[in-house]
Amino acid sequence: MSIAQFRAALGEIAVEDRAALVQQRSRDHYWYSPILKQKLDHVCADLVVSPRSIAEVKTVLAAAYRHGIAITARGAGTGNYGQAMPLAGGVILNLMQMNAVLDIKPDRVRAQAGAVMEEIDHQTRAAVGGELRFHPSTNRSASIGGFIAGGSAGVGSIRWAGLRAFGNILGLKVITCEETPRELDLVGKDILKVAHAYGTNGIIVEVEMPLTQSHQWIDVMVGFPDCIAACRFAEAVGLQDGLLVKEVGICAAPIAQDYFNRHKAYVRPGQSIVILMVAPVAIEAMAVFIEHHAGELLLRGDQLDADEKKRLPPIYELGWNHTTLRAIKVDPSITYLQTRYPSVEHVRTIIDIFGDELPMHIEVARQDGRVAFAGLPLVRYTSEERLEEIIAIHEANGCAVFNPHRYTLEEGGMKRTDEVQLQFKRQADPSGRLNPGKMIAWDDPNFDLTSGRAWLFSGLAPVEP
Amino acid sequence: MSIAQFRAALGEIAVEDRAALVQQRSRDHYWYSPILKQKLDHVCADLVVSPRSIAEVKTVLAAAYRHGIAITARGAGTGNYGQAMPLAGGVILNLMQMNAVLDIKPDRVRAQAGAVMEEIDHQTRAAVGGELRFHPSTNRSASIGGFIAGGSAGVGSIRWAGLRAFGNILGLKVITCEETPRELDLVGKDILKVAHAYGTNGIIVEVEMPLTQSHQWIDVMVGFPDCIAACRFAEAVGLQDGLLVKEVGICAAPIAQDYFNRHKAYVRPGQSIVILMVAPVAIEAMAVFIEHHAGELLLRGDQLDADEKKRLPPIYELGWNHTTLRAIKVDPSITYLQTRYPSVEHVRTIIDIFGDELPMHIEVARQDGRVAFAGLPLVRYTSEERLEEIIAIHEANGCAVFNPHRYTLEEGGMKRTDEVQLQFKRQADPSGRLNPGKMIAWDDPNFDLTSGRAWLFSGLAPVEP
Repeated sequence: MSIAQFRAALGEIAVEDRAALVQQRSRDHYWYSPILKQKLDHVCADLVVSPRSIAEVKTVLAAAYRHGIAITARGAGTGNYGQAMPLAGGVILNLMQMNAVLDIKPDRVRAQAGAVMEEIDHQTRAAVGGELRFHPSTNRSASIGGFIAGGSAGVGSIRWAGLRAFGNILGLKVITCEETPRELDLVGKDILKVAHAYGTNGIIVEVEMPLTQSHQWIDVMVGFPDCIAACRFAEAVGLQDGLLVKEVGICAAPIAQDYFNRHKAYVRPGQSIVILMVAPVAIEAMAVFIEHHAGELLLRGDQLDADEKKRLPPIYELGWNHTTLRAIKVDPSITYLQTRYPSVEHVRTIIDIFGDELPMHIEVARQDGRVAFAGLPLVRYTSEERLEEIIAIHEANGCAVFNPHRYTLEEGGMKRTDEVQLQFKRQADPSGRLNPGKMIAWDDPNFDLTSGRAWLFSGLAPVEP
Repeated sequence: MSIAQFRAALGEIAVEDRAALVQQRSRDHYWYSPILKQKLDHVCADLVVSPRSIAEVKTVLAAAYRHGIAITARGAGTGNYGQAMPLAGGVILNLMQMNAVLDIKPDRVRAQAGAVMEEIDHQTRAAVGGELRFHPSTNRSASIGGFIAGGSAGVGSIRWAGLRAFGNILGLKVITCEETPRELDLVGKDILKVAHAYGTNGIIVEVEMPLTQSHQWIDVMVGFPDCIAACRFAEAVGLQDGLLVKEVGICAAPIAQDYFNRHKAYVRPGQSIVILMVAPVAIEAMAVFIEHHAGELLLRGDQLDADEKKRLPPIYELGWNHTTLRAIKVDPSITYLQTRYPSVEHVRTIIDIFGDELPMHIEVARQDGRVAFAGLPLVRYTSEERLEEIIAIHEANGCAVFNPHRYTLEEGGMKRTDEVQLQFKRQADPSGRLNPGKMIAWDDPNFDLTSGRAWLFSGLAPVEP
């Protein structure tokens, strides 16, 4: 392994080696988790390489293969599990220079992996009146490739379910890390070989996504006397197939009052809120529906004056992990969990147990055709032991937890080896150069995922001088 | 009451009184039901009046109010419960001359009630790349006003649920039947005052409907060894939020083999089939999904040669009540039921009980946010008593029946008085001129809907000479 030889093989490809910039690009939002913050704080690459074409990506990967350099692909770095952090050092492969929207048709768009999602929507709306089915709350900065490699759901999931649900990704072009890197076009079920694999088994360079009808979504905020009433309303909205919405989120008091700096003026003390993005075609029906559920219409985006409109961030920046972000900005001791609440009654049980230790935040999303409560509760963090206890209490009460305090593929959401992704890694990254340490099955096939013990990548050990 | 005085008040409005034409326009597809056929065969209006403007509709309704003439509104007459049949004689108000598409926006369309649904889609596709959320299987002839006044669901319900689900109708303009007819614009929950009221409490003259992204839907037919396997696949498709489809229907063997003249060539003996309309953006994923469920891809519209394409009717003309229609054309002894099967196991139970007496046909649709089996089983009819027995056995096995052998609002789907519609009739049709005999609550508030006895409108008694 020689970083100098690797670098010499890159020719004209843009390389950054200034320490401050390399460190910045070696990080994502891992600091949402106090546990990951401690574990990953020292993680840093040697170089950042920014290819501008598929040919340049191939050159980088061939050099990495030949010279034994670890490659961690990165989009905008808006993930928060350390997905894009280089546990073994080496090179950050920054794909944000490959940001072209390549082809727009009425029902689909093809773009390079580094295209920012908001920019894709901007172009497709103008061209064909279409938009992507989903975006994360980091819409304004996140790349489409990063969302597919490291994300699971987001704004739009109330209609289209998870990002990896069948039909939500049409095609991915992937470059392998071999002596002579290959260009593979994955479609159909082959998409699952690399979607949400953190770039461990191939570098996504192009994506093809379906477009749906675009709308001038109207931001709406509705107040309820308590979180359970908010949950009932939010679930009822989710079950209304004719009421076109793109976002349904629930924030229990005092989340809005304490953490939503610009929006708090619209919320009364003690109110729990539901945030909505409503199609103009559904706004009048929604107004009736809110009244029917005795909700208080706190804010309606199409009725704000121009000054207010300018002052307020889009309402989706109160949801998903932006809820967490806003809370941490005010109170750095806060962290969060990812849970699944099977019913309103489960939410009530958890609220009764934890009270203010766990300010409740839920995103309502479809999953396998059903309306589901995807919990992203805030947690007033005290210790790792207590966090583990909170997780255990959730599980004991029938509420699954997808632990966001782990940096591997297996320990967060899946809790099992993805054999398809592992098998594909054997073909596309035979020497294990890509994002080492994120796929346990590759490094230690015998690790017991049920042990309750966090897996520790050996590359995380401080490097001997 | 004087039909001559009524007629004199119409001025230049088009009137038809030739007996053969009046009889033709006095009928809908009531003959799907041997029971309705017997009860309604003699029903006939005196005149057909065909207004061309709202002003003319008002003139007709004012004259009807003044001269005591019954008015039964009619679109294309594609209903099949006698909705548009004039039980008390009088006048058929033919709205098919009011067929203008008035305004098209990217997310909505406004049209006159008599506009044919296929023609609306034709215009909105060209103008904004949008289409109506739904259409009945009679898309090529049915009017939008008739669909709203007499229909409940259709092609598109797998995504948007029922036609009257909140948000699926944006606005209705209704003319009242009073001394001075009023023009009312109903929006929000007021839409339910007249939607699916068979024109008993106001005449719908304009509608505003949401538009969704249009697609060049691909007709697909999939074969399975039995109906239960077909049901499992169809339900699984319905639960795939990312797999964009507009139609999912199940026809057990031997429906396709015996009744689908043009399509039977694609089906092997004994196969039960699922018919689908799939968006091009979802067709490759669907092909994988069919394979995964061990379905046999029998027909794929985008892979037919031009001759085949021309020869085959659109696949939605195998679904909904077109299944019934095709069966009756081959075997006039067949009729059908409308049922709700809560699960595949319920379907299995019913199949086990009835076997070939009840060739199973199911449309998969969303209802209140859930994927549901809307049964439209064929029935090899023997007697009214046996039909009632089949209904009773359904209900005893937990499967609701919406009896299509009744001509009133209450006895078919709802089995209760709709107080909102009754109240609106008091305001909009105080003298009871509109479609008399279809709303039991108006004629006989004391009728016991739980009696099991069919309600008989006195206007049905043969008229004394």
